[in-house]
Amino acid sequence: MPTPDHTDTIVALATPQGIGAISVIRLSGTDAIAITQIVFKGKDLTQQASHTLHFGTVHDEGRLIDEVLVSVFIAPQSFTTENAVEISCHGSPLIVKEIIKVLLKKGARLATPGEFTRRAFLHGRFDLAQAEAVADLINAETDNARQAALNQMRGGFSKEINHLREELIHFASLIELELDFGEEDVEFAKRSDLKKLIYQIQGFLTSLIKSFDQGNVIKNGVPTVIAGKPNAGKSTLLNLLLNEEKAIVSDIAGTTRDSIEDEIVLGGINFRFIDTAGLRETTDVIEAMGVARTYDKMKKASLIIYLVDLSNTNLEEIDKEMKALAELGIPYIKVGNKLDKADRELVENLATKGFIFISAKSGEHIEVLKENILSLFEVGNVKSGDVMVTNLRHYQNLLQTNESLTRVLEGMDQGVTGDFLAMDIRQSLHYLGEITGSITTDDLLDNIFSKFCIGK
Amino acid sequence: MPTPDHTDTIVALATPQGIGAISVIRLSGTDAIAITQIVFKGKDLTQQASHTLHFGTVHDEGRLIDEVLVSVFIAPQSFTTENAVEISCHGSPLIVKEIIKVLLKKGARLATPGEFTRRAFLHGRFDLAQAEAVADLINAETDNARQAALNQMRGGFSKEINHLREELIHFASLIELELDFGEEDVEFAKRSDLKKLIYQIQGFLTSLIKSFDQGNVIKNGVPTVIAGKPNAGKSTLLNLLLNEEKAIVSDIAGTTRDSIEDEIVLGGINFRFIDTAGLRETTDVIEAMGVARTYDKMKKASLIIYLVDLSNTNLEEIDKEMKALAELGIPYIKVGNKLDKADRELVENLATKGFIFISAKSGEHIEVLKENILSLFEVGNVKSGDVMVTNLRHYQNLLQTNESLTRVLEGMDQGVTGDFLAMDIRQSLHYLGEITGSITTDDLLDNIFSKFCIGK
Repeated sequence: MPTPDHTDTIVALATPQGIGAISVIRLSGTDAIAITQIVFKGKDLTQQASHTLHFGTVHDEGRLIDEVLVSVFIAPQSFTTENAVEISCHGSPLIVKEIIKVLLKKGARLATPGEFTRRAFLHGRFDLAQAEAVADLINAETDNARQAALNQMRGGFSKEINHLREELIHFASLIELELDFGEEDVEFAKRSDLKKLIYQIQGFLTSLIKSFDQGNVIKNGVPTVIAGKPNAGKSTLLNLLLNEEKAIVSDIAGTTRDSIEDEIVLGGINFRFIDTAGLRETTDVIEAMGVARTYDKMKKASLIIYLVDLSNTNLEEIDKEMKALAELGIPYIKVGNKLDKADRELVENLATKGFIFISAKSGEHIEVLKENILSLFEVGNVKSGDVMVTNLRHYQNLLQTNESLTRVLEGMDQGVTGDFLAMDIRQSLHYLGEITGSITTDDLLDNIFSKFCIGK
Repeated sequence: MPTPDHTDTIVALATPQGIGAISVIRLSGTDAIAITQIVFKGKDLTQQASHTLHFGTVHDEGRLIDEVLVSVFIAPQSFTTENAVEISCHGSPLIVKEIIKVLLKKGARLATPGEFTRRAFLHGRFDLAQAEAVADLINAETDNARQAALNQMRGGFSKEINHLREELIHFASLIELELDFGEEDVEFAKRSDLKKLIYQIQGFLTSLIKSFDQGNVIKNGVPTVIAGKPNAGKSTLLNLLLNEEKAIVSDIAGTTRDSIEDEIVLGGINFRFIDTAGLRETTDVIEAMGVARTYDKMKKASLIIYLVDLSNTNLEEIDKEMKALAELGIPYIKVGNKLDKADRELVENLATKGFIFISAKSGEHIEVLKENILSLFEVGNVKSGDVMVTNLRHYQNLLQTNESLTRVLEGMDQGVTGDFLAMDIRQSLHYLGEITGSITTDDLLDNIFSKFCIGK
């Protein structure tokens, strides 16, 4: 693991792996420009202004590797606030490897995952919550997720949290000062003011904590299962939902991801269909519910679309299955399929049980189903500046901060001594500080940045 | 298809698809900077010097899309020689798509495959052979292939070809001038000088034509089949070759390609093992040789490693198989496997037939096998400046040029009239000109650039 004192020069591929027109290799560190200059033929990079681009060639001991365009960034005007270089070469994995190899030979070392962002954080370029948002931004799969990450990256709730934290620190100091005066029974920190401050902070915390339900859906999407007997039309429905989406998206060539086959975006939310290993195709989900493994997968869903074949079912069976469904405690939507072949009486009966009716084959009433899905998860459009918690770590720290503050309030009501109050305030400050990184440990940072990609 | 008059502004993702720290979107055209400025908040890009970088944000009607770094290139100082912009955004497919979408809205259009390079060619930035080398460079899978492409991109034989072409044009003009004088029997173009020039050109053409054997191996690798009866040890040998290679390569994280599983690089050459659809695992290749489909796959190979199980064979069988092999007319290497279990007499007998002996299981003598493979294809290291034909199109044009020139020589020997000579010279000029693109058609360009990736 890198030491906290980052001055050596790190290098990594910054663009996605694979073949393209160009790839970008990034260096950061005191010697970033000097090391690049050793392998570069063209202008003297060490004599150039910051934020300038220079055409030239990269060599390994006289052997030409590629023609490149080099961007020079002089400290502190860079992402990491260190000297930095971006080498834009031809987009071939082989060339990227050769250039990185020669830079390693000349004194750079391979960056660890997230190390560029980690350095930016350690050098005060932004706080920890903002740094974490960089990864969220890159991995955002919907426009809402992108906007939420961007808001967090650009400051988000960091400012408010730091402000509240400063006020709490002020109070904690006053209370700790009282302790120094021991027996004298002075009260530098007015208890009523402290209570008021804590109420104010808890109000803010509560609104953030509440936003996590929505934020989590926005960031992580909604794991969804289509459940029903064989031949209920599960695959037909899934394909209908997926294909409609694909037609709407009208992808710009070169930007399509491979893995979206089982995802649809509705109302800015990513619904990810869980492949319950053939469950969709072959197994009767509801009947198989007793089987632990299937059951576990169902429980991971945040939404179940329960599909019945109207042309081949009866009320007794449906009642049994709906009971089993309800016991899962997961939101579900009841859908009758094959409306065209349905018994009229059955449809009328199911309508009173909250069923909606579609024909997955013809696409009839598919919009009604979509509206039903969205009514359970609607988040609206995230706007610039919306404050929202999307990160589980932040959420947990906010909960813990809130609990500590509740203990402070309880302590005051019970008339506990200043030293106990101070302890709980310090505890809440700790949790709060971990969100923005005012308080960090190497373990915490390792844990956060190891989830980044290399080159970020 | 784009019209020859390229002035509109094109846009495309320039970096590989997928998730990474950053992605780069490229624009080129008269309005590239102006269009970017519409969606950009930061400095006024239209007022900046060429080759400068500017931090800012990209917006779609007030909606923030991302924080970006914009590179400005002012005509003619860019790859295409047009005004150009590179937008470095966070490496998310979603963000890339959003940014391209808003640029399209503001007047850019999506680039066709290879259109940036095509424009660079059309604007005289480089000739056609050099443009084609850009694609070869990106797709190079070995260091030799990279070096050969780079040499071609940086001029390669273009200069020589253009020089020879100019001399031929000069002669053709003189001969055509003679025709104007009709009956007068003047001879502006001295036939002996023309012959000398053609000999000189053919000498150069022949060396280029000869270099294609090597160039083709360097660029496209050697399709290789390991053939032999079931249990001869084909898979064991393949894994041994592949694994050794993997251990040697010691990949730099983030640059490994997925598809190299059945490729090894020996002596700078890429040996690609053809998966003859289970042929390797289940079928007795030699026996099945009569089956047309298997036979066809064998014929696509440039190298056959013929493996016999020394512990389970006899001379009669081997003789039969070797006869069938020889009829294929493809270079092959005869290998006896399971040396440890072999009959001594058999080994001695096979040694006289040019067999080499290994144990694929223990790896014994694997180096001998590698040396044998390389002795058939050794190319040495391609160096900066080495001139070599790697492109089938160039190769064919060189052959056709050579044939036309031979016809000119024959014509002179047979005393044909100047108009026929001129026709053959013009024909050779045509073939020669197509290589460097002095002579092009839209069809030719479409054909060449459609094989490029979008963004290049």
